[in-house]
Amino acid sequence: MLLHLSTWAEIEQYLKRSRAVVVPIGSNEQHGPTGLLGTDWLCPEIIAREAEKSADILVAPTFNIGMAQHHLGFPGTISLRPSTFIAAIGDWIRSLATHGFEKILFLNGHGGNIASIEAAFSEVYVEASFAKRHAGFAMKLCNWWDLEGVGELARKQFPEGHGVHATPSEIAITQWAFPDAIKSADYSPKIAPSGPIREALDFRARYPDGRMGSDPAQASPEKGGELVRLAASSLVRELNAFASEPLPR
Amino acid sequence: MLLHLSTWAEIEQYLKRSRAVVVPIGSNEQHGPTGLLGTDWLCPEIIAREAEKSADILVAPTFNIGMAQHHLGFPGTISLRPSTFIAAIGDWIRSLATHGFEKILFLNGHGGNIASIEAAFSEVYVEASFAKRHAGFAMKLCNWWDLEGVGELARKQFPEGHGVHATPSEIAITQWAFPDAIKSADYSPKIAPSGPIREALDFRARYPDGRMGSDPAQASPEKGGELVRLAASSLVRELNAFASEPLPR
Amino acid sequence: MLLHLSTWAEIEQYLKRSRAVVVPIGSNEQHGPTGLLGTDWLCPEIIAREAEKSADILVAPTFNIGMAQHHLGFPGTISLRPSTFIAAIGDWIRSLATHGFEKILFLNGHGGNIASIEAAFSEVYVEASFAKRHAGFAMKLCNWWDLEGVGELARKQFPEGHGVHATPSEIAITQWAFPDAIKSADYSPKIAPSGPIREALDFRARYPDGRMGSDPAQASPEKGGELVRLAASSLVRELNAFASEPLPR
Amino acid sequence: MLLHLSTWAEIEQYLKRSRAVVVPIGSNEQHGPTGLLGTDWLCPEIIAREAEKSADILVAPTFNIGMAQHHLGFPGTISLRPSTFIAAIGDWIRSLATHGFEKILFLNGHGGNIASIEAAFSEVYVEASFAKRHAGFAMKLCNWWDLEGVGELARKQFPEGHGVHATPSEIAITQWAFPDAIKSADYSPKIAPSGPIREALDFRARYPDGRMGSDPAQASPEKGGELVRLAASSLVRELNAFASEPLPR
Amino acid sequence: MLLHLSTWAEIEQYLKRSRAVVVPIGSNEQHGPTGLLGTDWLCPEIIAREAEKSADILVAPTFNIGMAQHHLGFPGTISLRPSTFIAAIGDWIRSLATHGFEKILFLNGHGGNIASIEAAFSEVYVEASFAKRHAGFAMKLCNWWDLEGVGELARKQFPEGHGVHATPSEIAITQWAFPDAIKSADYSPKIAPSGPIREALDFRARYPDGRMGSDPAQASPEKGGELVRLAASSLVRELNAFASEPLPR
Amino acid sequence: MLLHLSTWAEIEQYLKRSRAVVVPIGSNEQHGPTGLLGTDWLCPEIIAREAEKSADILVAPTFNIGMAQHHLGFPGTISLRPSTFIAAIGDWIRSLATHGFEKILFLNGHGGNIASIEAAFSEVYVEASFAKRHAGFAMKLCNWWDLEGVGELARKQFPEGHGVHATPSEIAITQWAFPDAIKSADYSPKIAPSGPIREALDFRARYPDGRMGSDPAQASPEKGGELVRLAASSLVRELNAFASEPLPR
Repeated sequence: MLLHLSTWAEIEQYLKRSRAVVVPIGSNEQHGPTGLLGTDWLCPEIIAREAEKSADILVAPTFNIGMAQHHLGFPGTISLRPSTFIAAIGDWIRSLATHGFEKILFLNGHGGNIASIEAAFSEVYVEASFAKRHAGFAMKLCNWWDLEGVGELARKQFPEGHGVHATPSEIAITQWAFPDAIKSADYSPKIAPSGPIREALDFRARYPDGRMGSDPAQASPEKGGELVRLAASSLVRELNAFASEPLPR
Repeated sequence: MLLHLSTWAEIEQYLKRSRAVVVPIGSNEQHGPTGLLGTDWLCPEIIAREAEKSADILVAPTFNIGMAQHHLGFPGTISLRPSTFIAAIGDWIRSLATHGFEKILFLNGHGGNIASIEAAFSEVYVEASFAKRHAGFAMKLCNWWDLEGVGELARKQFPEGHGVHATPSEIAITQWAFPDAIKSADYSPKIAPSGPIREALDFRARYPDGRMGSDPAQASPEKGGELVRLAASSLVRELNAFASEPLPR
Repeated sequence: MLLHLSTWAEIEQYLKRSRAVVVPIGSNEQHGPTGLLGTDWLCPEIIAREAEKSADILVAPTFNIGMAQHHLGFPGTISLRPSTFIAAIGDWIRSLATHGFEKILFLNGHGGNIASIEAAFSEVYVEASFAKRHAGFAMKLCNWWDLEGVGELARKQFPEGHGVHATPSEIAITQWAFPDAIKSADYSPKIAPSGPIREALDFRARYPDGRMGSDPAQASPEKGGELVRLAASSLVRELNAFASEPLPR
Repeated sequence: MLLHLSTWAEIEQYLKRSRAVVVPIGSNEQHGPTGLLGTDWLCPEIIAREAEKSADILVAPTFNIGMAQHHLGFPGTISLRPSTFIAAIGDWIRSLATHGFEKILFLNGHGGNIASIEAAFSEVYVEASFAKRHAGFAMKLCNWWDLEGVGELARKQFPEGHGVHATPSEIAITQWAFPDAIKSADYSPKIAPSGPIREALDFRARYPDGRMGSDPAQASPEKGGELVRLAASSLVRELNAFASEPLPR
Repeated sequence: MLLHLSTWAEIEQYLKRSRAVVVPIGSNEQHGPTGLLGTDWLCPEIIAREAEKSADILVAPTFNIGMAQHHLGFPGTISLRPSTFIAAIGDWIRSLATHGFEKILFLNGHGGNIASIEAAFSEVYVEASFAKRHAGFAMKLCNWWDLEGVGELARKQFPEGHGVHATPSEIAITQWAFPDAIKSADYSPKIAPSGPIREALDFRARYPDGRMGSDPAQASPEKGGELVRLAASSLVRELNAFASEPLPR
Repeated sequence: MLLHLSTWAEIEQYLKRSRAVVVPIGSNEQHGPTGLLGTDWLCPEIIAREAEKSADILVAPTFNIGMAQHHLGFPGTISLRPSTFIAAIGDWIRSLATHGFEKILFLNGHGGNIASIEAAFSEVYVEASFAKRHAGFAMKLCNWWDLEGVGELARKQFPEGHGVHATPSEIAITQWAFPDAIKSADYSPKIAPSGPIREALDFRARYPDGRMGSDPAQASPEKGGELVRLAASSLVRELNAFASEPLPR
């Protein structure tokens, strides 16, 4: 069930059978010479919507702009400050909690989001902690690449040059979903360099074409499809397990 | 050109021929018994992407969650606080300006967003004003229903019961774009009541099924298609005019 | 009744007969070669205090600094950022609500304030909406030029060259109230240019003497007096209607 | 020279002969059974405007709402949070500095404002300190009762029962300025109790009629006039001395 | 009892016999040619821990970074903005109040902290005031030099050249506590200049070696020991008096 | 070199030979029945000061209160909200950068701090990224248990029941440093449960004595000493490597 294509009355019905919702969350940022700017929000959206096709789960709209300040040296990147991102995630959570959602799973597509998302969870929980009351709801952060079996499959598909940014696995997923938007380029070097992440100019100096440690030439729509199907089924299990956890009151 | 399906190198090329970008912005909120929760962000997204098919314009990802606090009494609504929304719009603008975008047109789909979007523009401009320097870029807010000719067409299509929320025109647009998600219901009363907008419980008490002044039963995919095509061509003209305005330095 | 010239005990008495209060709100900003810097906060203050002379209404102190970032290129302008303005309006509302005021009417004198005032109302209401409770009070924004009959009178008085900033109507009002502070200048051009509003340097470049679309030479104390008397009586009706609205609980 | 009754062109002229400005700042809060709610912003406004009559100084609009959270238990009090107050003072300073004002003297009428005003000054200065540059302007806080000679006069006028809130000296000043708004009441006890200041309910429990340590029955318009004239002349000297201080660059 | 060397179970026990806690709070900032950068947080820590040796009081960890923006021109200074400082003090208070602490005494070692600490108290109290409820706890600010008898002793020890920054009394206290870290220098002039405090570059220009009005050469570990012992015993009395104050509910 | 026991002139000298500084950072929070409340800020402080004894490194004061909202159900815990924590870390960094520090290593003692510290780094870097300039400095986060060799030693010392909170390794370190503050208790169960971390009441319900997955009975001062010595020498290597990294400009 896609929340944005539902009516409020349909969500009211859904809440009678489940209190869980998946929020795809990512980032809009450069992904090397061939990766789509939307890669990091498209991947969790693609996976969540694939999962929704065969399971009675609810998928919220995609939170498409995250914390990508280090990619701002490359045109097309859009980033929130961590403080803005934390405030916005908090308002999404507060909104969903208002309706009675008790389990909010953020399916994340961007490593750079992790710190801010976790900080946002604590920023929401602390309101309950300072007030000495229960929150009444719980959040969970799942990176799509950490879903059961997905890391193993990616390592099998791309034993070398997977890297950490503009990886062949994420690019394969967008190739599968958007075959008309497959781009090509000569990569030099074949496997991009690795190193620390700091401000945008530093990043562009270290990683001139935007990749980090990756060789995206290995991506293919077929491999992307395999990843999506596996991730989607793992997501359903993850969400169901989370949904069935009792919530202390 | 869809920014999220482009690479950073393609955006770098685009910036050589244009400094303008369209950002569809809306809200995810209840739209009466039959309107989709995503209506207000889907409409500007649909129009902007329709426009992009036949013109060399750049469309950013959709800013899909806006200021909808008054709709929080209906399940599925997600809202930012105005302060969060203003901070987030500011970060989008700052990010785009970093790349050299000088004309940022927000194509808006939600009346409740207008105040916060305009406040956000001022919040960004004031940095330049306090520093006694030029901003180097300009923003414009266009509500899709204010695009040239669109209001006239809507009044012709729906001479009565257009209303201001869950209007037949916005619902027609989503019907055209998502024919599989057309919902139906008996509306009672036929034309919904009107009145002020305050907090969520007040809103739900005044407008029990979520509509304000509207009779969405008049919507049809055909009328939606007419609206989209007209709005798309007006948007291209609006953007081109904005893009060609000189920027004082 | 002027709140600032009353004691707390007098306000306690007033609250037994009414829960409504008027807050004049404006801006301190350049108003062309002859307009007073205080014009936009003086006008609503003048009108509200005129209304108070013949009706049992309560007038709060004037909120005299608003959102005028675009006028900062002209000496004497003082502006809050939108975010500061929103926070401050919120604290005024929270304070008044603490005492049991249930209807807070902001009588506004500056177009540039509208977005921030409306955003401020939502910022206050959202606290109730996130908490699923009633606010217990309501706010209303009235621009003095939108009070019943006022626009018509101004159009009759100034059929041409009314414009939108440093208008003859607002200058006439301050002339009526402060006859010793009437200034004169040669206006060139007679009717000032029109256009968009952006950061301060852009504004000063577009509107070199500060006026927008107006010919203030038409102002006179007599016309000002007419406007004030009409606006004052309309304000009393507007406030009484607002005061008598039931508040859902 | 009253800024709000001047044009921008007049301020531009003034800046050629002086870079100093006085900002009356106070609070709108209960002042016991007979004190006006506006006492704390009226006093500095009265003194500054008296000073302006005989000296070429510039007086800004009055910052009329300050930090009075502890008085919120009494109807009519309006308070900013310290954080809001600090942000607003900062924006006033930034605005004035934009025009070239280099010496901004805040003439304060409320003891409860002092901490927030000083914190606000530091909040503005720290921007320069973090950036390793000069601010280019300086602020000074003067409480009107600390102006040269004023404390001595008040102690002579009111050797007993001056107290710290709803004092006979501040009430005398408003009696002098607003003879039509003089109120009377039986005070019991004659001299109000003293003690700590905490939240509003605690305050009202400790100080049932709002006074702290004072016997306002001693106030008279004549004593108020003496205080105003002395304070006004001291203010001019204080401002001139401040204006002539060299500013390191 | 030192909170940081206790277990939560021991604090739970302590709360059964007392609801009071001391928080040493200071600043890390330059203290002239011979003063330690930690002087202002070490002094209250030293005094509080001395007091704790012979009385059943609870001493929290030391809040060691305060508002020292004006000292940032000298290496080693670390400062919070006032707004950050206020937020952090608020969170300390909220945390302690959660456990049932009702009397929180901040023993302060830095004059520049006073405004922000008092603003922070009001920022916390206002939450109760806006909500029309009791806070349930109270805060008190004590500067160590204002503890009973301490000022007198310091004036006796240092009748001249005590000054206000890098004073012989505070340096004596750190000499007593850290005899291995006693530094020496030639002071020129013997007694440092006095004047206003503004941004960091202004401060360093006015006070080239960092001292304000002081002659620290008079400090000795013996004098420091006298000050510490007196301050410690006064602190215990102060805390006990505060602890025994009834709290209105 | 301990920054707080140095003078500003000594830091000025230090900056001529190194631009690196270590900031111990932790949390003050419950650590089970026997762990000290200060454990998480004491451990990095102990290790950094041990390292400083034999290497020319500079150790800043300890940032002792972190993000521990989930422990607020246990008396003695003090927590910042993530947003406050991020603001404060930012101000520490801005202060140190003002003096020319270019490499700021945060030696962390609390897992719950990681997200906020990383978000804080990005919050600082984004200022440079939005301004299209280099930051001029870099930060690094090192958890003491991740220093080279430390994890291996801890696993060897405590092959079972190390857990993640109130671990035998961190308790051993404080036992070594504070032998007079060694506490004992019967642990039941021997190894504490594991699970998710949410708000404070949820945490206390899941982990009744405060431990997570650990058996602290295995701790001893001797093991603590081993850990400290190893961690201290690894820290020096880590800092030197970081200090010698070139910084792009």
